[in-house]
Amino acid sequence: LSGGVALRDAARRGIAIDAMGGDRAPSEVVKGAVAAARQMPDLNLHLVGNEELVRNELEAAEWGGENIRIVPAKHVIEMGDSPIEALRRKRGSSIEEAVLLLRQGEADAVVSAGNTGACVAASTLRLGLLPRVKRAGIAVAFYAGDRPVIIIDVGANVASKPEHLIQYGIMASLYSRRILEVENPRVSLLNVGEEDEKGNRLTKETHGLFQKTRLNFVGNIEGVEIFRSASDVVVCDGFTGNIVLKVAEGLAERLVELFKEVLGQALDPAVVSTGEGGKGGEQAAVAAVLRRSLGKVHERLDYSEYGGAPLLGVNGVVIIAHGRSDAKAIFNAIRVARLIAELDLNRDITEEIQAFSERE
Amino acid sequence: LSGGVALRDAARRGIAIDAMGGDRAPSEVVKGAVAAARQMPDLNLHLVGNEELVRNELEAAEWGGENIRIVPAKHVIEMGDSPIEALRRKRGSSIEEAVLLLRQGEADAVVSAGNTGACVAASTLRLGLLPRVKRAGIAVAFYAGDRPVIIIDVGANVASKPEHLIQYGIMASLYSRRILEVENPRVSLLNVGEEDEKGNRLTKETHGLFQKTRLNFVGNIEGVEIFRSASDVVVCDGFTGNIVLKVAEGLAERLVELFKEVLGQALDPAVVSTGEGGKGGEQAAVAAVLRRSLGKVHERLDYSEYGGAPLLGVNGVVIIAHGRSDAKAIFNAIRVARLIAELDLNRDITEEIQAFSERE
Repeated sequence: LSGGVALRDAARRGIAIDAMGGDRAPSEVVKGAVAAARQMPDLNLHLVGNEELVRNELEAAEWGGENIRIVPAKHVIEMGDSPIEALRRKRGSSIEEAVLLLRQGEADAVVSAGNTGACVAASTLRLGLLPRVKRAGIAVAFYAGDRPVIIIDVGANVASKPEHLIQYGIMASLYSRRILEVENPRVSLLNVGEEDEKGNRLTKETHGLFQKTRLNFVGNIEGVEIFRSASDVVVCDGFTGNIVLKVAEGLAERLVELFKEVLGQALDPAVVSTGEGGKGGEQAAVAAVLRRSLGKVHERLDYSEYGGAPLLGVNGVVIIAHGRSDAKAIFNAIRVARLIAELDLNRDITEEIQAFSERE
Repeated sequence: LSGGVALRDAARRGIAIDAMGGDRAPSEVVKGAVAAARQMPDLNLHLVGNEELVRNELEAAEWGGENIRIVPAKHVIEMGDSPIEALRRKRGSSIEEAVLLLRQGEADAVVSAGNTGACVAASTLRLGLLPRVKRAGIAVAFYAGDRPVIIIDVGANVASKPEHLIQYGIMASLYSRRILEVENPRVSLLNVGEEDEKGNRLTKETHGLFQKTRLNFVGNIEGVEIFRSASDVVVCDGFTGNIVLKVAEGLAERLVELFKEVLGQALDPAVVSTGEGGKGGEQAAVAAVLRRSLGKVHERLDYSEYGGAPLLGVNGVVIIAHGRSDAKAIFNAIRVARLIAELDLNRDITEEIQAFSERE
């Protein structure tokens, strides 16, 4: 478990992982890290957290390799903690130490499934923002139809100004093109109507500014269109984006429940025997098909499949994974963190933001 | 089809229906009105719109009763029209004439599935607001779990101030209690976190004000909680509410599609025959169960079941039905319009708003 030698190997990418962050930490986080270490042996993983707990999990995962090391951290910021206050009170928390590893050049990226606000605050305070970037934004990608759609910002910045939204559009467009491999991504502004003049003061001002960028700006988009692949990048303020994300999560959860309920009733023997050909034993077959199908729908919806949400605009690669992340979600987050670091997305963002500022 | 006699019977409730409003007007609107006229023979229904088209639909529906009359209107405001501009250009549109019937005392309520913005503008301009009410708000009710949940405002007012939101809470709480029969409705503020100090400037200011009301205010609510029956009335600004509503609509649509896709694959003979007991003919049985189940889920989600969304705060009963309303949705909207008029919800709203203003 001593990663010291590997660390000095400059050719290897290092990822700092907040081993204590998330509802299922450290167990699922460590499992995900072990899976990544196995599949990407050229990575150095730094598991930041309570040494004993993390070591136990590594042992439980039967990990004996060299490319994971434990970096001790004294505190854990809980999901319910007030971010700024917790960062002050719990100096040396796992998320803060992970971010510091990045700042010190020992890691190329950070992954955390912990308190989102604390992760944003620690990253912004300790790493700073990229040149000319005014606010960092969280970009969440999910499948709608057959293409990935990005929503930015989903909660880093709840008091957005027009120029923040423009920068979100620029940054997320690059993320879409370079990381998700969408050609010439269509960028839109989330609004209450498609007409140019619709919306509140923020969206009206922002709409005009977007038209001056070199982005493939396709105008306003309504909520219902997000899921119809009408756009590849949907820009909104962090208040709206956070609510959209959580409403979508709540509704999807409720819908899957509702399907189970309704199908459960449909599979009741009394119901099944009333005609449609179902007789006794066939129920098991139907139920099995349904269970598999529900699982697949869940997979297609699950944005953890995309490997967490990058915090775009900070001077470093920071990936925020969902609080409920399991090992697979953590594995995917590590994979995406690595990709963003390797492709040096932040260099592109810096150049584009500079080019846009100079044209203004 | 001459309702003149019935009109002079003051004991009968009159409902003015925008026969031209909605994607499926006038056909589905007229069908819904005919169903209501059959089931509630004590109602007078005024179908406002193109006389010939409406008459043809009435004939197609084989309606020969006396409690429906046609009120001619010269214009139709289309779904895509800019509301204020269209009201100016198309004087005497079906929605405007319907609202005027209410103002003239010939109808007790208005139902429209047409252009929402035009309906809000016509109602606000022609009827005015109830005493001390600052802004009208659209209250949408839907099932989450086993209880109805109301979201207000879903788009009447995209530039909300704290006092508007407080009034929305008061009005929707009365709607919940008196019309949806929820006891002591829990009122919450839609926000990005549950802690009191969370949110943007609007929600922070509003939160403090809500604590001073006599409402059963349960604090901030996150998007994911809406569908967990954590609150009976969810208050938000019209920008956020409109986006929430449309995101929910888009996601539900997409999810039902996804279920169909995945289940379609699961029902492929090649798949079904690989083990789970399915053999040839049983597929039909499975498919039938699934089709029925999808239909039921759709029904449970469908907020048209609740009979449209009242525009609370205007001096009159105005029900906005979904643009895609079918006959059943129109029927339900008429039913709710009648109930709100009969129970005189606006008197309660006026009293509560006055009581709150005086305590301040």
